[in-house]
Amino acid sequence: MSYIYSNIIGSFLIDDELNITKEELFKSLDDYKNKEKFEKKLAKKSPKAKRLNKKQLTKVLVHFKEKKYFNEYYKRNLEITKKAIRKAVNVDNLILQTISNVNDLDKTSNVLVKRLRDWYNLTFPELDKAIGDHEKYAELVATKTKKELLKDLGIKEEDSMGAKLEKQDQDEIKLLAVEAYSLYKLRKAHEVYLKKLMEKHCPNLLEICGVTIGAKLFEHAKTLRHLALLPSSTIQLLGAEKALFRHIKTGAPPPKYGVIFTHPLVQRAWRKDQGRVARSLASKISIAVRVDFFKGEFIGDKLKKELETKFRRK
Amino acid sequence: MSYIYSNIIGSFLIDDELNITKEELFKSLDDYKNKEKFEKKLAKKSPKAKRLNKKQLTKVLVHFKEKKYFNEYYKRNLEITKKAIRKAVNVDNLILQTISNVNDLDKTSNVLVKRLRDWYNLTFPELDKAIGDHEKYAELVATKTKKELLKDLGIKEEDSMGAKLEKQDQDEIKLLAVEAYSLYKLRKAHEVYLKKLMEKHCPNLLEICGVTIGAKLFEHAKTLRHLALLPSSTIQLLGAEKALFRHIKTGAPPPKYGVIFTHPLVQRAWRKDQGRVARSLASKISIAVRVDFFKGEFIGDKLKKELETKFRRK
Repeated sequence: MSYIYSNIIGSFLIDDELNITKEELFKSLDDYKNKEKFEKKLAKKSPKAKRLNKKQLTKVLVHFKEKKYFNEYYKRNLEITKKAIRKAVNVDNLILQTISNVNDLDKTSNVLVKRLRDWYNLTFPELDKAIGDHEKYAELVATKTKKELLKDLGIKEEDSMGAKLEKQDQDEIKLLAVEAYSLYKLRKAHEVYLKKLMEKHCPNLLEICGVTIGAKLFEHAKTLRHLALLPSSTIQLLGAEKALFRHIKTGAPPPKYGVIFTHPLVQRAWRKDQGRVARSLASKISIAVRVDFFKGEFIGDKLKKELETKFRRK
Repeated sequence: MSYIYSNIIGSFLIDDELNITKEELFKSLDDYKNKEKFEKKLAKKSPKAKRLNKKQLTKVLVHFKEKKYFNEYYKRNLEITKKAIRKAVNVDNLILQTISNVNDLDKTSNVLVKRLRDWYNLTFPELDKAIGDHEKYAELVATKTKKELLKDLGIKEEDSMGAKLEKQDQDEIKLLAVEAYSLYKLRKAHEVYLKKLMEKHCPNLLEICGVTIGAKLFEHAKTLRHLALLPSSTIQLLGAEKALFRHIKTGAPPPKYGVIFTHPLVQRAWRKDQGRVARSLASKISIAVRVDFFKGEFIGDKLKKELETKFRRK
């Protein structure tokens, strides 16, 4: 009785006492893919060779702890693992990283602009009140001088309540403004990139939800696969976990929508209809994501139109 | 009987029934500084004129609510306030803002580099382990290609566990790296600026403590004036408030030092001496800050030498 057994380093002929009698070592992992070829070679020599059963296998594996095989065994395994890790990176990861980074940039640029406002207020408190938008504020301080800004606001220089700072002090503030502003610019670049990724990876989801909501759904589900597997009722409530658990725990009214609440269709609906719209929207999203996951056709525009027709305001 | 009274809009002659009979209006706030000149003019006409007492004053002030005076009164007051606000900005504010901003930059650059590491790990996980320093990491990713970095680390491209990303994906990561790295550069620029400010504003404190500890003391005290008014025992414990209150509340051992713990002199001392060194250091800091506040001579080098001689390790 003899057996044939193959692993990543070669094909082996094994005798009754479970010792290796013949071996055909692979030169590289590519050979492993064609292991049948090597097994045939061995089978010619003992045509009645069988496969090992589980119990025998564990005994045979002990041979590969020997020095003769172990190094090669270890190396090949490492190679396989590396390949697997390399392959594990997919568009999901890229999208997720980009979304997280956009969130991080939001936070950090907010911190820096608040500091900028505080600092620039020493010399120009009027600008703080005049410009509410953080990004605009950073842009103005980064690109214009105080004189120009005073002129734009129609304030005479002697009327400003700000202190006169020396040039080097102003320069320092400007450096911060430039930095903060470029964080905003980076955020925009990331958004364009994110949209491109989504256009390729999940065009239907993008069409129905837009970048912002699509990204948020993605963030909750982590992968497109997971998002595609979720029931539409879960998609409807993604992002409303707190309210959902409050409902379960205390019997408070259940939430009607999660992150999709900011979708234009839900926003445009009458208050009493919003739950109904959210439910329909979630079901269409669910369809879209599944089509995306299985690389189906582009039906986003059709789905969107159906929703819009259904909920057109009379 | 008649009275003379001046305020920011003019000098007035006032009769028995507390009505204004004569006025010398000021043309600008500068005249208010020379109000004696105007009062003399009025005094010529009624040499026996007295000052108003408090009770009469409140009655006279009612006149200035009239349209005739009010506009001018309001305008001048606003002008004075603005001037006061403008003057209230001093080097203390600039130093404090810069310190806070350096802290903010530390936080934000940390957030961004962590995200950068996470993201770049998809394509180059080996670099994360090889480079522990956040700033260095950002610099490398910002300035070098993956190929160059692989070569520097002595890793063959096919051995890397990272996925191969397309150029546009890599570019996006690089944008983030450039941004994060420039936050570090901004932090350095701010530190140079901070040192310059302190050299002018508190050279003695700077000499004894260096920028970092000096800035931290400043942060706790908010102004140089306040820091100069603090007893040296408080300076010794600035930054150890938590331990101090724990001591007061629970009777735990009292803290021996606050932010000055990181001072080289304290660090270099034997553990049992550190409290003693901190006490001496705090007293010298206290002297230095007071000299700084009253714009005295530069004695920082002398004070520092005294400390170093006293605590030289035998």
